[in-house]
Amino acid sequence: MQKTTQPNQTFSGTQPTGSIVVGVVGLGLMGSSIVVSLLLAGHEVKAIAPIPADQLTAHDRIKEHLAHCEQFDLLTEPLDDYFARLSISEDYQELKGCQFVLECVSEIPAIKKEVYQRIEAVISEDAVVATNTSAIPISTLQRYLEYPARFLGVHWAEPAFATRFLEITCGENTEIQYAEWTYALAHRWQKEPTLLKKDIRGFITNRLMYAIYRETFALIERGETTMEDADKALRYDFGSWITLMGIFRRMDFMGLENQKEIFDRVLPTLSNQDEVPAIMQKMVDINARGIHNSKGLFPYTDEEAKKWEAAFTKFNRDIYRLAEQYPIDKIET
Amino acid sequence: MQKTTQPNQTFSGTQPTGSIVVGVVGLGLMGSSIVVSLLLAGHEVKAIAPIPADQLTAHDRIKEHLAHCEQFDLLTEPLDDYFARLSISEDYQELKGCQFVLECVSEIPAIKKEVYQRIEAVISEDAVVATNTSAIPISTLQRYLEYPARFLGVHWAEPAFATRFLEITCGENTEIQYAEWTYALAHRWQKEPTLLKKDIRGFITNRLMYAIYRETFALIERGETTMEDADKALRYDFGSWITLMGIFRRMDFMGLENQKEIFDRVLPTLSNQDEVPAIMQKMVDINARGIHNSKGLFPYTDEEAKKWEAAFTKFNRDIYRLAEQYPIDKIET
Repeated sequence: MQKTTQPNQTFSGTQPTGSIVVGVVGLGLMGSSIVVSLLLAGHEVKAIAPIPADQLTAHDRIKEHLAHCEQFDLLTEPLDDYFARLSISEDYQELKGCQFVLECVSEIPAIKKEVYQRIEAVISEDAVVATNTSAIPISTLQRYLEYPARFLGVHWAEPAFATRFLEITCGENTEIQYAEWTYALAHRWQKEPTLLKKDIRGFITNRLMYAIYRETFALIERGETTMEDADKALRYDFGSWITLMGIFRRMDFMGLENQKEIFDRVLPTLSNQDEVPAIMQKMVDINARGIHNSKGLFPYTDEEAKKWEAAFTKFNRDIYRLAEQYPIDKIET
Repeated sequence: MQKTTQPNQTFSGTQPTGSIVVGVVGLGLMGSSIVVSLLLAGHEVKAIAPIPADQLTAHDRIKEHLAHCEQFDLLTEPLDDYFARLSISEDYQELKGCQFVLECVSEIPAIKKEVYQRIEAVISEDAVVATNTSAIPISTLQRYLEYPARFLGVHWAEPAFATRFLEITCGENTEIQYAEWTYALAHRWQKEPTLLKKDIRGFITNRLMYAIYRETFALIERGETTMEDADKALRYDFGSWITLMGIFRRMDFMGLENQKEIFDRVLPTLSNQDEVPAIMQKMVDINARGIHNSKGLFPYTDEEAKKWEAAFTKFNRDIYRLAEQYPIDKIET
């Protein structure tokens, strides 16, 4: 039976106060990268590896990420101080005292359900439990919780320690103060979070991504563009304004005079395809995993794959700093 | 009757050689900004104002753009040297000797037709004639040309003098060597052009823009997000990788394992709407023109509108320089 949370001192209004101990359950690629983000934000982090083999690999991965952070000038303390605030364990008891626990395990509901039971057995009833899922609706997972009101989605972007994006999503039974508390906490992580009060199928940016993929694959299949040209056009067109403006302010900037005519003309010609694009089906057939097995939409050597990883971290650092110089509110006032 | 071009010394292979005089016909917002881009690239520019009133306003606008360029450190010569290479006139005879003429007049076919006749009456038969249209198919306009083989679309992004994007589009009768010559010339303009050998309805990036707008407006109309949150999510999610990778390399980077499942799940839920979104219809009804009349999707004062213009130029300079540090070929090899 699901229970109602009793509010307690954790929530003074909706602001997180004092130093907050956080937990991360699941130390795969994404979990490890999130642990680093939380360490950078100054938290004491209790990391739980439900898969014992992950304990060692996670340690190495976190170390490598922190080395990247040091190389790209993202650390404010000596590297060892970050490690000193981290524990990696199989033992859920470590989560006792955590006010925020993030689940990052496989996208398999039965596994997640068991993880929530183990987490809830240890933490207090008003600690926030969040999931990093990008595949399962928050409201579905919320049904597995004993105290569902404190459950929500916190969706990160890779590399979690260098990006500014964060989507916080309520399930149908989430109480808003938990979302607002998490929203405030996310600012301590140097994020620019969005707060979705309604649980939608596929997160905003994911849906928009696939709207673009659908149209681009249709153009490619008709021989009207190539992957190379589409990437080039997006890098230099979208890239030249999206970080500054997003799409709606961009529209205001370009002027709205002919917009109705353009919508009228273009919308009926856009792809409405429901089926998996042929190029993606081919990728599945050859077991392509992109830079992870050097088999993807583009070719890669192992060395090139490594270079992309480093370039991505560095670029995120750079674009983060660039975006900081253009705060919307400073431009507006 | 349309005629075939005789190749001459302008095209040594498909490379533009020596100093090239260029013409721009139509000195509205976009035309003026393109003139500045061509001046920055070192060209002698013959600017024609078919609307006499534009002669004076274009002069002031170009001066203001060049002042912006000076302020943001985009000039390599004294400001006056750029002006010395520019002539502004009503007289099409000025175009004599131009090897490249770009038409930037209103999106009204009859007006464009007359402009092409006036241009072709003066220039040599193998000089390239290009249009900056984003509304009319290149193949349609091409029918107005006496020598159609040298006609193509050259689609700029604002502010033309600071962006890196350029789409070159062939019509059905364009001979490829003209497109390749223009492609090579565009590199002198510090652009990263794409070359579309087929004329498609709506340029690539425009189509992808409207695929995103369609989905985002649908989410907003269902109360699942807001314009503010969508812009924030796009600024910090898309913004954190699009300039570096585009969308396909991004897919390789994230890994392709679950992509088939995601396409299967998400595509059938995307908006297939053909009608103009309600929010855009409302903008038309209130005569909203964005920052140009301080009435738009978001509110603006005149002062705020001016700040956005300056911020956009500066951001373009910054992102251009940032992108230069991440050349795809250097990362790959």
